[in-house]
Amino acid sequence: MAARRRGRAQVRARRAARAAHGLMGRLVGRVLKAPGSMPGTLEHTGEKKVEKVRIRLIDYDAESIEERTLASIEESFALADDPPVTWVNIDGLHDISVAEAVADRFGVHRLALEDVLSPTQRPKVEEYPDHFLVILRMLTFDEETETIGSEQLSLIVGATYLFSFQERFGDVFEPVRERLRHSRGRIRSRGTDYLAYALIDAIVDHYFRIMEDVGDRIEELEETVLREPSLDVMHRIHHLRREMLILRRAVWPLREALGRMYRGEVPHVTEETQMYLRDVYDHTVQVIDTSETLREVLTGTMDLYMSGVSNRMNEVMKVLTVIATIFIPLSFFAGLYGMNFDYMPELHVHWAYPTLLVGMGALALGMIFTFWRKGWLGR
Amino acid sequence: MAARRRGRAQVRARRAARAAHGLMGRLVGRVLKAPGSMPGTLEHTGEKKVEKVRIRLIDYDAESIEERTLASIEESFALADDPPVTWVNIDGLHDISVAEAVADRFGVHRLALEDVLSPTQRPKVEEYPDHFLVILRMLTFDEETETIGSEQLSLIVGATYLFSFQERFGDVFEPVRERLRHSRGRIRSRGTDYLAYALIDAIVDHYFRIMEDVGDRIEELEETVLREPSLDVMHRIHHLRREMLILRRAVWPLREALGRMYRGEVPHVTEETQMYLRDVYDHTVQVIDTSETLREVLTGTMDLYMSGVSNRMNEVMKVLTVIATIFIPLSFFAGLYGMNFDYMPELHVHWAYPTLLVGMGALALGMIFTFWRKGWLGR
Amino acid sequence: MAARRRGRAQVRARRAARAAHGLMGRLVGRVLKAPGSMPGTLEHTGEKKVEKVRIRLIDYDAESIEERTLASIEESFALADDPPVTWVNIDGLHDISVAEAVADRFGVHRLALEDVLSPTQRPKVEEYPDHFLVILRMLTFDEETETIGSEQLSLIVGATYLFSFQERFGDVFEPVRERLRHSRGRIRSRGTDYLAYALIDAIVDHYFRIMEDVGDRIEELEETVLREPSLDVMHRIHHLRREMLILRRAVWPLREALGRMYRGEVPHVTEETQMYLRDVYDHTVQVIDTSETLREVLTGTMDLYMSGVSNRMNEVMKVLTVIATIFIPLSFFAGLYGMNFDYMPELHVHWAYPTLLVGMGALALGMIFTFWRKGWLGR
Amino acid sequence: MAARRRGRAQVRARRAARAAHGLMGRLVGRVLKAPGSMPGTLEHTGEKKVEKVRIRLIDYDAESIEERTLASIEESFALADDPPVTWVNIDGLHDISVAEAVADRFGVHRLALEDVLSPTQRPKVEEYPDHFLVILRMLTFDEETETIGSEQLSLIVGATYLFSFQERFGDVFEPVRERLRHSRGRIRSRGTDYLAYALIDAIVDHYFRIMEDVGDRIEELEETVLREPSLDVMHRIHHLRREMLILRRAVWPLREALGRMYRGEVPHVTEETQMYLRDVYDHTVQVIDTSETLREVLTGTMDLYMSGVSNRMNEVMKVLTVIATIFIPLSFFAGLYGMNFDYMPELHVHWAYPTLLVGMGALALGMIFTFWRKGWLGR
Amino acid sequence: MAARRRGRAQVRARRAARAAHGLMGRLVGRVLKAPGSMPGTLEHTGEKKVEKVRIRLIDYDAESIEERTLASIEESFALADDPPVTWVNIDGLHDISVAEAVADRFGVHRLALEDVLSPTQRPKVEEYPDHFLVILRMLTFDEETETIGSEQLSLIVGATYLFSFQERFGDVFEPVRERLRHSRGRIRSRGTDYLAYALIDAIVDHYFRIMEDVGDRIEELEETVLREPSLDVMHRIHHLRREMLILRRAVWPLREALGRMYRGEVPHVTEETQMYLRDVYDHTVQVIDTSETLREVLTGTMDLYMSGVSNRMNEVMKVLTVIATIFIPLSFFAGLYGMNFDYMPELHVHWAYPTLLVGMGALALGMIFTFWRKGWLGR
Repeated sequence: MAARRRGRAQVRARRAARAAHGLMGRLVGRVLKAPGSMPGTLEHTGEKKVEKVRIRLIDYDAESIEERTLASIEESFALADDPPVTWVNIDGLHDISVAEAVADRFGVHRLALEDVLSPTQRPKVEEYPDHFLVILRMLTFDEETETIGSEQLSLIVGATYLFSFQERFGDVFEPVRERLRHSRGRIRSRGTDYLAYALIDAIVDHYFRIMEDVGDRIEELEETVLREPSLDVMHRIHHLRREMLILRRAVWPLREALGRMYRGEVPHVTEETQMYLRDVYDHTVQVIDTSETLREVLTGTMDLYMSGVSNRMNEVMKVLTVIATIFIPLSFFAGLYGMNFDYMPELHVHWAYPTLLVGMGALALGMIFTFWRKGWLGR
Repeated sequence: MAARRRGRAQVRARRAARAAHGLMGRLVGRVLKAPGSMPGTLEHTGEKKVEKVRIRLIDYDAESIEERTLASIEESFALADDPPVTWVNIDGLHDISVAEAVADRFGVHRLALEDVLSPTQRPKVEEYPDHFLVILRMLTFDEETETIGSEQLSLIVGATYLFSFQERFGDVFEPVRERLRHSRGRIRSRGTDYLAYALIDAIVDHYFRIMEDVGDRIEELEETVLREPSLDVMHRIHHLRREMLILRRAVWPLREALGRMYRGEVPHVTEETQMYLRDVYDHTVQVIDTSETLREVLTGTMDLYMSGVSNRMNEVMKVLTVIATIFIPLSFFAGLYGMNFDYMPELHVHWAYPTLLVGMGALALGMIFTFWRKGWLGR
Repeated sequence: MAARRRGRAQVRARRAARAAHGLMGRLVGRVLKAPGSMPGTLEHTGEKKVEKVRIRLIDYDAESIEERTLASIEESFALADDPPVTWVNIDGLHDISVAEAVADRFGVHRLALEDVLSPTQRPKVEEYPDHFLVILRMLTFDEETETIGSEQLSLIVGATYLFSFQERFGDVFEPVRERLRHSRGRIRSRGTDYLAYALIDAIVDHYFRIMEDVGDRIEELEETVLREPSLDVMHRIHHLRREMLILRRAVWPLREALGRMYRGEVPHVTEETQMYLRDVYDHTVQVIDTSETLREVLTGTMDLYMSGVSNRMNEVMKVLTVIATIFIPLSFFAGLYGMNFDYMPELHVHWAYPTLLVGMGALALGMIFTFWRKGWLGR
Repeated sequence: MAARRRGRAQVRARRAARAAHGLMGRLVGRVLKAPGSMPGTLEHTGEKKVEKVRIRLIDYDAESIEERTLASIEESFALADDPPVTWVNIDGLHDISVAEAVADRFGVHRLALEDVLSPTQRPKVEEYPDHFLVILRMLTFDEETETIGSEQLSLIVGATYLFSFQERFGDVFEPVRERLRHSRGRIRSRGTDYLAYALIDAIVDHYFRIMEDVGDRIEELEETVLREPSLDVMHRIHHLRREMLILRRAVWPLREALGRMYRGEVPHVTEETQMYLRDVYDHTVQVIDTSETLREVLTGTMDLYMSGVSNRMNEVMKVLTVIATIFIPLSFFAGLYGMNFDYMPELHVHWAYPTLLVGMGALALGMIFTFWRKGWLGR
Repeated sequence: MAARRRGRAQVRARRAARAAHGLMGRLVGRVLKAPGSMPGTLEHTGEKKVEKVRIRLIDYDAESIEERTLASIEESFALADDPPVTWVNIDGLHDISVAEAVADRFGVHRLALEDVLSPTQRPKVEEYPDHFLVILRMLTFDEETETIGSEQLSLIVGATYLFSFQERFGDVFEPVRERLRHSRGRIRSRGTDYLAYALIDAIVDHYFRIMEDVGDRIEELEETVLREPSLDVMHRIHHLRREMLILRRAVWPLREALGRMYRGEVPHVTEETQMYLRDVYDHTVQVIDTSETLREVLTGTMDLYMSGVSNRMNEVMKVLTVIATIFIPLSFFAGLYGMNFDYMPELHVHWAYPTLLVGMGALALGMIFTFWRKGWLGR
C-alpha cells in the first residue's frame, strides 16, 4: 500500500514535469484559455518564458539602416507607418499589453491576436485587409535529450511594417540581420514581403539541420541495433518516432500555407517574392519527403530490432537444447546403473563400465553431429 | 455443462450492461426506431436519461437580458419570433411532444426532427428555408473508467431563435451564459448565428480538455510500459485506442460541417460570424491532428510493450539456460560416479574425488565465462 | 498415401460446400455465365433458390390499395402503365422468362437485365430514358454461424411502376407493406420514387441491426480475449473480419449510388424524395463509419489476443524457470554426495548431512527471494 | 568453400530460370531494348515464344463471314480498308516485319508500335487520328504451380479493321469467334469498336475465372491453416500474395483505360458501344474489389498462421513445463536419499521409504491439480 | 569506461563515413549552404567530386555535327546562340564560375542556378521566359554494396542550346551521343526539346536496369529466406528497403514533372516532343508500379523470414521437449531406486530390475507414440 502511495506521488510529480516539457505540452499547449472564455479575449496562454519583454527594431531602406532596442512598443509606431521597411521583433508574449497595443494601432483582428498569443497554433497564413498573418514553428533539437523543441513565431506583415512575436530569446534570424546590416543580396531594396520570406526561409533551412541531426541519430541507432539490440535502443526508436511527429506537425501545415502564398492567394505578396516563396515551398516538400523517409527507416529499424531479439532468443534456446539434449539421456543411464537392486547382472560384468562410457561417448557424438547438421552449433 | 450455463447467464448480463454503456451503445444507439417504421416518425430512440424535461429560456438584446425556466415550451414561442435573440435550451428528449411543438411552430422538417431525437447522429449541418440545424457531440471524460462519454447536442437556429436540445442535464455552456449575463465581448449585440458559434466554440474547447486528459493517460502509460509492462497496461492501451475512435467520430464530421458553414454555404450565417467559425474550424483541425498524433503514440506504446515483453521473456530464458547449462553436465558427472559397477577403477583412486571437484569447478567457471562474454549475465 | 487420398476427397467435398456458401460464392457468384457468351444474354447465373417464382402485386393510390399474387407477370402490365403506383415484387430469378417479359414490355436494356439476373453485382444506380435501375444488397446475419448472408435486390423504377427482383422468399419490406396498407405517413400519396426510397431505407435500417449483432459479438470476443485467449477466439476474430468485408462490399458502393440519387443526377427522382434520400445517404455513411470502427476494434482485439498469448507463454516459462533453477543446483549437490568414490571425507563427517540440508534450504530461499524481487512469482 | 562455389553455380542457374519465368520477368520483361536505343526503334523485346508467326483473318458483315489463315500480312490490307469489319489476329511478335508492315500501311505511330512489341506494357488506351490502340493483359492461371501467367494483347482498332497482336498461340476468344460464325446477338451488324469491346469483355470475364481459382486456393489455405499450420502453408500464402500483385498490375490500369473509353474520350467508339464498355468497366471494378478482398483475407490468413504457430509453441512449452515441474523436485528428493553420508538418520527409519513415496505422490498430484486449474493440461 | 570511450571514437569515425556515403548524405546533401545565407547565393553545396571541370560541346544540325572539349565555358556561347542545336555538357560543379557565366549569359534566374548547384534537389521542371530547367536524378547500382547511388543532373534548355550539369564524370548518355554522331532516327533534325527528351529517356531507361538488378537481389533473398533464414538476410532486406526509398524519391517527383511537360504546361516543348514525353511518362509510371510491387514483395519476404524464424524456434523447442519429457520421468525412477533407505522391499525382488527396465521402455515408447501423434517428431 505504501509503495502504491509513493507511486502515486511520483506519478503526480511526473505529471507536473510533463506539463512543462512533455508531449501534450508541446501538442496542445499547457495553459489553455479558460474554457468558454470570450473568443478574441486577449490572454497569453503559454508559460511565461522570459522575464521581460524585449522589443528590437530594425528600420531600413536601400540607403540606411537603424537598429535599436525599444523600451516600449509605442516608440515603433511612427516608424512603422513610414514607407521604408520597419521590422519589430518582440521576444516574450506574457505581457499582452504589447501585442494589444500593436493590434489597436494597426487594426489587427482580435482573432488573429488571440492566435498570436496562444503558442500552440498550427502553422497558417491568414490575410486581412491591411496586413497578413503568418504563424509558423521554430524548431530546435536538444542533442542531450534528443528532443525537438517547438516555439511559435508569428509574423504580422503590413505594407511598411513587420512585427514578429516569439516566446523566448534566441532565434535563427542572425544571418538575416547580418544581411540587412551589410545590405547583401539587395535585401534592403525590397519590401516587407521579401523580409517575411527571408525569415521563413531561415526557419525552413533550420529544419534541414534538425533533420540531419535526427537522421544521424537514426543511422547510429541502426548500427547499434545490428550490433547489440537492447531494450534501450527500442526506447530511443520510440522516442525519435514521437519527435518526428512533432516535426511533421510543424511542416505539413506550413507547406499548405506557403502554397497559398506562392500561388498569389495572399495579397501584399509581390510576384517576385512569390517566386522566392515557391523555392521555400519546394524546400518544405523536401523536408516532408525526407521526414517520411526517416519515419520509414525508423519503422524498418524497429523490425530489425524485433528480428534481432528473436534471433538472440533462438540462439539462447539452441544452447539450452543442445546441452540438455546431450546430457539428459546420459544422466539417465548414469542414474540407471546407480540403482541399488540386488539383481542387476550388468553391474558385475567386468567390461560393462568402459563399454558404457564408450556408448555414452558415441551417443553424445551422434547428437552433436545431428545438431551440427541442423546448423544449431553456431555458424 | 453447468459452468457453461453459468457462463451464458453472465454473457447475457454483460450484454445488458453493454447495451447501456458499451461501445455499440455509443456507436449506433441502443434503441433504434422500429425497423422500417415510417421515416419522419417522431419517436425518441435514446434511453430516457432525465426524469422531467427542463426548458430554460434566455432572451436578450444589447440592452437587456431575461433568463427563466419555462413550464411548457409554448411559452417561448411568442418571444422566439421577436427580433431580439431567444435561446431556448431543452434538457431531455424523451417527451417528444416538446420537440414536436417546436417543429410545428417553426416549420422544422420532420426528417430534421427525427435526427434531433435519435441521439447517435453524425455531426452535420443542414440548411432549411427558415433555419438551419447543427448536430454535434458534447464529449465528457470519466476519469475513473477512462471512458469518453458522448452526448448529442442539436441546435435549430432561426433568425431570432435558437433551440438547443440535449439528453441530460449538465453542459459546457455555463461560461457562455456568464458572458451573456454580463454582456462581455459584445456577444449580446450579435445575432443567433453568433450565439450558435459561441456554443460550438465552447464544445470544441472542451475537446481540448478531453484530449489533454487522454494525452496525460497515454504519457502515464508510456512510462508504465517502460518500467513494468504488464498485461493490464496492454488492456488500457487497447481501451484508450477504442476511446480515441469515439473522439474521432465526433470530430471528423464536425470539421466538415464547420467547413461548410465558414465558407458561406449555409445561409443565415453572417460574414463576420463566418470569420469566427473559421477559427473554430482551425481548432477542430488541431483536435484532429492531435488525436492522430495520440493514436500514433498509442501504437508506438503498444510496440514498446511488445518489445518489453519479449525482452523479459528473453531474460527469463537466459536465466534458465545459464543455470541448466551449468548444472546439467555437472550432474551428469556426479551421476556417473554414483553408478554401482563392480569394476570402476576411478572410484578407488585416492585423489579422484578432489580432482573431479576441481574439474567440475573449472567447467562451471568456463561456462560462466562464455555466458559473460555473450552478455547473457545481465547487463 | 491413403490418408492423402482421403484428404483429397475431403478437399473436394469441402470445395463443393464452399461453392454454395463460401466466401467466393458470396463474392463473385458461383455459376458465372459461360465465358465469352454474348453480352446481354439472358441467363440466370445464381443458384436456383426457390422452387417457383412468386409474383406479388400491390397497386395503390392515395384512396385505395389492391394486393394480390399473380399467376403470370403479364397480368401486371396493364396496371403498371396506369398512373397510380404499381409495385410488382418477384421472388426467384431462375425463370428468366419473367424478367425477359418485363424487359420487353417496358424497354429495359439488355445489359440492365443481365445485371438483374447475375446475383453478385455491386450496388449501383443506372438511369435509362424511361426508368432507372437500382441494385443493392439485402443482408442477413445468421446468429448460429455468425455469417452475413448477402442477397441481391434489383429495383426497376418507372414513372408508374416499380419492379423488385430478389432470389429468395423473405425480405425486410413487411413494415413498408404495412404502411402502404394503412396509408401511414402519406406514403400512398407519393410516387414510385418515394416507394423506392422506402424500400432502400428499410434495407439500410436492417444494416444497423446487423451491425449491432456483429458489434455485440465483437464485444463478447473482447471480453473472452481478456479472460482466456484461446485459438478458437482467434478464429472467430478472423471470421468476423471476413464477414465485415462482405458488409463493406454491400455498403460502400451503395453510398456512391445514393449520393448520385440525392444530388439529382438521376431523373425520375423528385426533389422532395431527394431530401429523403439524403437522409438514407447519411445513414449509409454512419453504417460505413461504424463498420470501420468495428474493424479497428477487431484489429485491436487481435493485438490483445497476441499479447495475451505471449503473456501466458511468459508465465509458463517463468514457472519452468523458477522450478528448474531452484532444483537443478540442489539435485546436483544431492548427486555429488551420491558418488561412490572411496575417498570422500565429507561423507564421514557427522553433521555433514544436516549442514548440507540447511545449505540447500538457504540456496533455495535465496533463489526464491531473487525471483520474488524480479517479480517472477506471480503478481 | 566448395559448398559455397556449388551454391553460387546454383544461384546462377536459378537466375537464368527466373529470367524466363520469375517475378521480374513478368514485371519488367527480360530483354529490354538496348539502353538508349533510338525511341521508336522497332525491336521485339520479349522472348520468342512461337516458331512461326500465324496470321488469321476474319472478314465479316451482317450477311457473310470469311475466315482464313494468311501466309503474309500484306494479303489482309486490301480487305482491311473495305467497309465490312476485318479482324486480323497475329500470334507471335518476334518477326517484327509483320508489325512494321501494318504500321506502314495504316499509319500507326512508331511509339505505338514500340509498345505493341515490348510485351510488358501497362494496360492503356491511346488514340491517334485514324485508329486507337488498346493494350491489355491476358491472364492465365497454372493450377500446378499456382502461378498467374500474363501475356500482352494489343489491339489496333481503325474504322474498318482491327489488328490484334499476341505472343503465343491460344487465347480466350474462341467464344467470340463462335458468335461471329453463327452471327449470334447481332455482333456481325456492328462495327470494329464493338468487336474490340467483345474481345476486352472476353478477357475481363476470364479474370473472374482466375479470381475464382485463386479464391478457392485461398479458402483451402485457410482451412489448412486451421488444421495444421506448417511453414509450407506460409510459403503458399506468400506466393499467392505475390501472384495477386500480378493480377492487380493487370487490372488497375485497365479500369482507367476503360473509364476513358466509356466516357467518350476516345473517338471511334460509338455511343452504344460506350454503354457496353461501361458494363465491362463495372466488371473491372468488381474484379478489383474482389481482389482487394482476397488480399485482406490472405493477410488475415497469415495472422491466423502466426497465431496458430505461437499457439503450438505454447502447447509445446506447457508440456515441457508440466513434465519438468512435476519430476524435477521429485528427482531431487530421490537424489537426496541416494547420498552416501554416514549419518543420515532418515535412511534407517522403517517407514521412511513408503512415507516418502506417498509424499512424492502428493506433491505430484498437487502440482497436477495446480496445472489443471491454470488450464495447462489441454483444453 | 575505456570501452565506452573507444566506442565513442568509433561512432565519430562512422559518422564521418556516413557524411559522405550514408543515407542522410544522399537524402539532404551533406554540406548545406550556410544557414540563412542569402537566397540565390551561388555556392556549390555538394562534395567536390572531380578534380577539374570538364566541358564538352556537341553542335549539330541535320547535315553536320561537331564535337569537342572546351577549355572555358565562354567558348560555347557564340555557338549556343546560333540556330542549330548546341549541347554543352559540364562534368563537375565545384567551380561555380562556370555555372555563373552560363547564368549571366543566358539570363538564368539566380534561384534556378542555386538549384543546379545544390545537388540534392527533388526532380522538377521549372519554366522561365527564355528557357526551362529540368532537374532529375541519375541512379547507379553498386553490385558489391547493393547500394543505389544518386547523382543530380540539371538541364537548362533554351531554343538553341542545352546545358547539362552533373557532378561526376560518367553518364548514361553514350548511346544518345552515338545516335547524334550517326544521325540515326532523325534525332539531328529535331530541336533542343527532343534532345532533352532523349537524355531523360536514357536516364529513365537506366532506372529499369537498376530495378532489374534490385529485383534479382530480392528474388535471391526470397530463396535464401526459404532455405536458411539468418539474421544476415534480414539485414539485407532492411538495406534493400532503404535503397528502394532512394529510388522512390528519384522517380515520384519526376513523374509529376514529366506530366507537366507532356501536357504542354511547359513552353518550348513542341507538340511532337510532347507525344514522346508521354511515352517516358508511361515508363516512369511503370517504374513506380514495379518499385511498389518490389516493396510489397520485400515486406512479404520479411514476414516469411519472421515465420521461418519462429518455425525454427518451434522445432528447437520440440526437440528439447521430446527429449526432456521422455528422459526426465525415467531419470526419476532411476533415482528412486538409487536411494539408500534400509527398507526398500522392491530392491530385493529378483525380477524387479528387468521389470523396471521393461516399464521404462514402455513409458518411453508411449511418450514417443504420443509425440508422433501430435506430429512433433519432424514431418
